[in-house]
Amino acid sequence: MQIRVEGNRARMPGLVNVHSHSFQRLIRARTEHRSPAREDSFWTWRNAMYRVANLLTPEDIYHVARMAFLEMLLAGITTVGEFHYLHNAPDGSRYDDPNLLALRVAQAAEDVGIRIVLLRTAYARAGWNLPANPLQARFITSTAEAFIADTEALRRSLPTVQIGVAPHSVRALPLEYIREIVLYARASGMPVHMHAAEQPAEIEACISEHEARPIELLARHGILDHSFTAVHAIHITSEEVGMLAAAHAGVCACPTTERNLGDGPVPADRLLDAGVPVCFGSDSNAQIDLLEDARALEYHLRMEKLRRAILRPGSLLSGLTHAGQQSLGLAEQPNDYAILDLNDASLAGSDAGSLATAILFSANRTAVRDVFVNGRQVIESGRHFAQDEIVREFRRLCSRIG
Amino acid sequence: MQIRVEGNRARMPGLVNVHSHSFQRLIRARTEHRSPAREDSFWTWRNAMYRVANLLTPEDIYHVARMAFLEMLLAGITTVGEFHYLHNAPDGSRYDDPNLLALRVAQAAEDVGIRIVLLRTAYARAGWNLPANPLQARFITSTAEAFIADTEALRRSLPTVQIGVAPHSVRALPLEYIREIVLYARASGMPVHMHAAEQPAEIEACISEHEARPIELLARHGILDHSFTAVHAIHITSEEVGMLAAAHAGVCACPTTERNLGDGPVPADRLLDAGVPVCFGSDSNAQIDLLEDARALEYHLRMEKLRRAILRPGSLLSGLTHAGQQSLGLAEQPNDYAILDLNDASLAGSDAGSLATAILFSANRTAVRDVFVNGRQVIESGRHFAQDEIVREFRRLCSRIG
Repeated sequence: MQIRVEGNRARMPGLVNVHSHSFQRLIRARTEHRSPAREDSFWTWRNAMYRVANLLTPEDIYHVARMAFLEMLLAGITTVGEFHYLHNAPDGSRYDDPNLLALRVAQAAEDVGIRIVLLRTAYARAGWNLPANPLQARFITSTAEAFIADTEALRRSLPTVQIGVAPHSVRALPLEYIREIVLYARASGMPVHMHAAEQPAEIEACISEHEARPIELLARHGILDHSFTAVHAIHITSEEVGMLAAAHAGVCACPTTERNLGDGPVPADRLLDAGVPVCFGSDSNAQIDLLEDARALEYHLRMEKLRRAILRPGSLLSGLTHAGQQSLGLAEQPNDYAILDLNDASLAGSDAGSLATAILFSANRTAVRDVFVNGRQVIESGRHFAQDEIVREFRRLCSRIG
Repeated sequence: MQIRVEGNRARMPGLVNVHSHSFQRLIRARTEHRSPAREDSFWTWRNAMYRVANLLTPEDIYHVARMAFLEMLLAGITTVGEFHYLHNAPDGSRYDDPNLLALRVAQAAEDVGIRIVLLRTAYARAGWNLPANPLQARFITSTAEAFIADTEALRRSLPTVQIGVAPHSVRALPLEYIREIVLYARASGMPVHMHAAEQPAEIEACISEHEARPIELLARHGILDHSFTAVHAIHITSEEVGMLAAAHAGVCACPTTERNLGDGPVPADRLLDAGVPVCFGSDSNAQIDLLEDARALEYHLRMEKLRRAILRPGSLLSGLTHAGQQSLGLAEQPNDYAILDLNDASLAGSDAGSLATAILFSANRTAVRDVFVNGRQVIESGRHFAQDEIVREFRRLCSRIG
């Protein structure tokens, strides 16, 4: 990451947020109370998230996406990879345009002025040998053929937007479905993103179904390659690290979400040592602060090993920009950047040798003053051009869904 | 913590930062590069910190303290407990006024407008059976008698400032010295703060010297009571948790520093379950964001247990305010408060049921608009009345010491 200083300002490349579920911004702070049973976990959180997902109209999805994207821009993020899995009406029926909801999210990105890559998600089942879960009805596309047809339709609707293919997880799809859509993506030059090895229960289920761990399964069936990004990749063996490296695949870490959901630390030291690039995502949007994600990745490892300075700062900075673009199938974007105030209290006093680590380890959002996407200024002096209206509509939505 | 909403504004009690070493703001971001030997630890960090500590003139100490206190106010912190251990000239000689440096820190607090409790630190040795470390010469007060005389002099110099007694650690003081100054503090009604059980090496050294772990040793010798705060208390047994509880002692967690230094997680679940209050400190000031400290405490436990919602949000909020005042020997301060903008992107959409958890888990500093200390407004619309001058002098200091 190239940071250029002029006077009291530093120009930093726009940050690349590789993995977001924008609608989850709605449950921010609404799942943090301890339940009486004290059995709070990723899985109880997921139920709360599903409940909200099923309340949303297409317009609601537009408004919450705008809110999340606005906050990303305020945090110096200029590109978002939206891992989009809301496709159907709440009862599971298809909309007249099966991409209606994806198009509302793309419209939100355009209106807010953030660069988007739409990672169109395939989801077919609750899990191996599990009955259908009605709370997942909005996500379901039953066959690979239908998924491919819908994705092709989306590409026609959004000719200037990068589209990616996102098999949700080894849990949510049969292996053959994954293979088909990955071959389709590969033939079309689209990036492939997939949740993998986030929670121990997912590993166990995968072993039961396939007699293999998730990354192992994907490697064995030729699904990993340079266009593949494994999101999370937390509970992985050294052999699986080697498989990702051998395939030139990447990993997306989402540390502020992973700590919120109690997922565990991404073994970024082993991954980076093996040559696997690690990029970042704000995922659940419990917080939107990609610099905090980068420092939390390093800090999770320090807390695990009780040592300091585990990863190279340069790897973290590259993960915030270059590795993110690579994961999303984008070129470098020299006209996407943020201007930081070197007099901000969080950065003041850094010099040429420490500015990059100061941004990485200490910068607060108050330091982000101006943000440009494709040369267009979208944030000026810490404010977005449509901030008041976006916040007002979002608050109205929150009041309605309670 | 009582949060009052009026329109688009919320009034939050000022946050209480119980444990700070303000001068360490100078090494922010300057110790995060990985060393070629990859042996970075608390102890290599400490050497870097010592080197800077020995460069500072009394005026430098004033300027860096102002910078740290300014950032605290911007983050909604209205009280700081400054654990002050720089007493002597760099060669170890006493200044004409042995409290010269403490008085510069107190002056910085007064000029910036933050409430300060000066925790005057006693430091006598590098460790048991260790030769003197010349890099610690500024910290040393050889005898308990001299420490008490100096502390009495400071109390006369600062009649309106709360003073506390801070035996640095079981490593840095012989047991008898600790006992003497704690009895002195108790007789004078002063709070007692002490680093304890931050690093495994400290536990091992304590067992070698005393055949007891640090908290165990302090309990056995009657040093723990309701006025005692153990800073860190990370590597402690269940028996030691019980000893802190039985003595009605408290713990100060410093999670953004503890993660930076690779110390490990404070077992706040066990402490709070046993009735030990847990408050917060920004400690090394690598970041100054006490809300991030509170959420990091919870998140460290989630990452350790791979579960969610470990602590009650109410305990964390109380730790940010009431428990901090209790630890510092202060009454509640109803005229210390911060005004938050409920339209800030980090908080927008929270309602009566989620506002407290939104502040705790998601608020960014941009939400802190106005801050009042003892009824006096020190931050207005996110700016401090002397911000430009404080930052300018601090940057000048940084340029000089390099």
